Amino acid sequence: MMSNLKVPYLLTPGPLTTSHATKAAMLRDWGSWDDDFNRVTADVRAQLLTMAEAASDTYACVPMQGSGTFAVESALACATDPSGKVLVLMNGAYGKRAAQLLAMMGRRYVTLDKGDYLPPQPDEVATLLQQDADITAVFLVHCETSSGILNPLDAIAEVVRAHGKTLIVDAMSSFGGIPISLTKTPIDVLISSANKCIEGVPGFGFVIIRQTLLAAGKGRAHSLSLDLYAQWDYMERTGQWRFTPPTHTVVAFQAALDQHREEGGVPGRCARYTHNRDVLVKGMRALGFSTLLEDQWLSPIITTFLSPTDPAFEFKTFYAALKSRGFLIYPGKLTDVESFRIGCIGQLDAAVIEQLLSVIQDTLTKMGVSLFSESRSA
Amino acid sequence: MMSNLKVPYLLTPGPLTTSHATKAAMLRDWGSWDDDFNRVTADVRAQLLTMAEAASDTYACVPMQGSGTFAVESALACATDPSGKVLVLMNGAYGKRAAQLLAMMGRRYVTLDKGDYLPPQPDEVATLLQQDADITAVFLVHCETSSGILNPLDAIAEVVRAHGKTLIVDAMSSFGGIPISLTKTPIDVLISSANKCIEGVPGFGFVIIRQTLLAAGKGRAHSLSLDLYAQWDYMERTGQWRFTPPTHTVVAFQAALDQHREEGGVPGRCARYTHNRDVLVKGMRALGFSTLLEDQWLSPIITTFLSPTDPAFEFKTFYAALKSRGFLIYPGKLTDVESFRIGCIGQLDAAVIEQLLSVIQDTLTKMGVSLFSESRSA
Repeated sequence: MMSNLKVPYLLTPGPLTTSHATKAAMLRDWGSWDDDFNRVTADVRAQLLTMAEAASDTYACVPMQGSGTFAVESALACATDPSGKVLVLMNGAYGKRAAQLLAMMGRRYVTLDKGDYLPPQPDEVATLLQQDADITAVFLVHCETSSGILNPLDAIAEVVRAHGKTLIVDAMSSFGGIPISLTKTPIDVLISSANKCIEGVPGFGFVIIRQTLLAAGKGRAHSLSLDLYAQWDYMERTGQWRFTPPTHTVVAFQAALDQHREEGGVPGRCARYTHNRDVLVKGMRALGFSTLLEDQWLSPIITTFLSPTDPAFEFKTFYAALKSRGFLIYPGKLTDVESFRIGCIGQLDAAVIEQLLSVIQDTLTKMGVSLFSESRSA
Repeated sequence: MMSNLKVPYLLTPGPLTTSHATKAAMLRDWGSWDDDFNRVTADVRAQLLTMAEAASDTYACVPMQGSGTFAVESALACATDPSGKVLVLMNGAYGKRAAQLLAMMGRRYVTLDKGDYLPPQPDEVATLLQQDADITAVFLVHCETSSGILNPLDAIAEVVRAHGKTLIVDAMSSFGGIPISLTKTPIDVLISSANKCIEGVPGFGFVIIRQTLLAAGKGRAHSLSLDLYAQWDYMERTGQWRFTPPTHTVVAFQAALDQHREEGGVPGRCARYTHNRDVLVKGMRALGFSTLLEDQWLSPIITTFLSPTDPAFEFKTFYAALKSRGFLIYPGKLTDVESFRIGCIGQLDAAVIEQLLSVIQDTLTKMGVSLFSESRSA
């Protein structure tokens, strides 16, 4: 992939660097009620079910306008029983946001808060489900981009199924880049967004949801715009989105799905992202950086590095220097320690990561930052 | 403007035909938290205040992800007092939707429902405000695209001010194409969207709102995603959108604003749309069609034509024939009579309308539809 001196690479968990073909798909206008566009919507919905290995007679895919949070809000409103209680597994910003959403819509919930980066463990979930029979659903963030941790989805899903509860998974930053099979893993609701591992541009999210839960969600919504059941019902009846869709974004997403398939689908994309991450982590460690997480918890999506303790290091200066050389990195989101994050998703390959490593080394030298006094993980 | 045989013109109230320059602005990816993008957001917000002639120390412009309805929902939640009562002026789908939104969020309201296409009259509004002292706010749709009517905004705004009430205006399909001055006309909240008269692509709306109303709206929202106060507060503090913005759509909108200014701003655009409408209405009447509305209520946005009563006319066939020749028209939305709508906004000029008229004449001939037995308006 070519380096681009004017437009920086987005080394972030999305919005991310997309292909020219994806963006070029937006060079046309579409009537949002016309059959031509309805076919795009239908195709995208069907392809997402296939990618999730979700049977089309059991699950439905419902897109929702707005950011990923809009989709999570609509999914929680639809899929959680107002008389039930949700166990929210938290280890970062997105678990916290789910609790905030439930609080706002007056749904009962309890939390398992593991702090900044520790994974919720299946046996902890089992204990909580045994102790509190009122719990009807469990919410898990698959890849919590606050730290970059990949939470143990499969093992927790088995526990949730064993207790007969509903599992709602925020797979915002993992779906399409990390294999998730709704045939193999018992997930009732899965939420993701256009501008993550499928490498579309931002503007809508989508919910893959068991049809029985959708039907039960009729009339539960607290918001007209974010009524997932009504969106689904209208789409099934008319082929159209209930309110004006972000037409160009949807068409770009269809182009991104084509490229995803050409890359070998989820396994192909996962291989590239994992290689990006491996080259990044190895190179950063060679420079003297430490990762926040042990290797077993590292996702191929985004990695948190601890900031050097050398007083010559200042994040703003580091960020600006990397940006001027063509790379946008991401600030840290930890409460206790100074850190920053580097994403591995989007139209990036190992050559781009190698360029980045070289620029980082050069920048540290210019800043006069020494790293090898630091303790190093792994 | 060039005719385009492959991609039809969108003769609709938005999404609409946008310029190539607007779409081409989407050929770049942006970091949604980076200063470069924050500057685009700040510029767009400032330009919208200027366009509305809204003093920047009195009003704020707050964009909101999603369709226009998402923006209306967020505005109503923020700007209506939960202990107050809203008078909703209705003459079509969008007035009805506002009432539905208020019902959903548990706000009290009364309606003045004028049916399919009659305008609410200032004296009717005055009477209702005198009769019911509990009313705290009035909601008006400026251009109700259900019929194409341009409601009497200025006269109603004066009545609302005289009674000391809040005026909320859905200017979705009019703002940017029809002069609205918040300096001259007492409007407290004005809502519009990217993909209407400013000729951007769909993906977000915006609310121009009195800052005192924003402040009073803190904590009122029924939805996390659609919390207009929180969006504004976060944007003021960080320069960023609270949740991932539709970056490409925002940048396309900035390009559209440039072109809007180059065309002479609102007066320039209004002149082109009005000329489009005049050529359309004159030509359609010459073919034998009748407009639903009398001339004084016709907007330069979209016009409703009554369907021919000749049994040879079938809308689906008519629509498909026009589409195959490069023009997408819009179905009618009246409850009583068969009708269809033709929009005048977007990258269209009189030459395009003339082409359309010629294609309509040709299509009617092929369909064997006779029009001159019809009664004609005006």
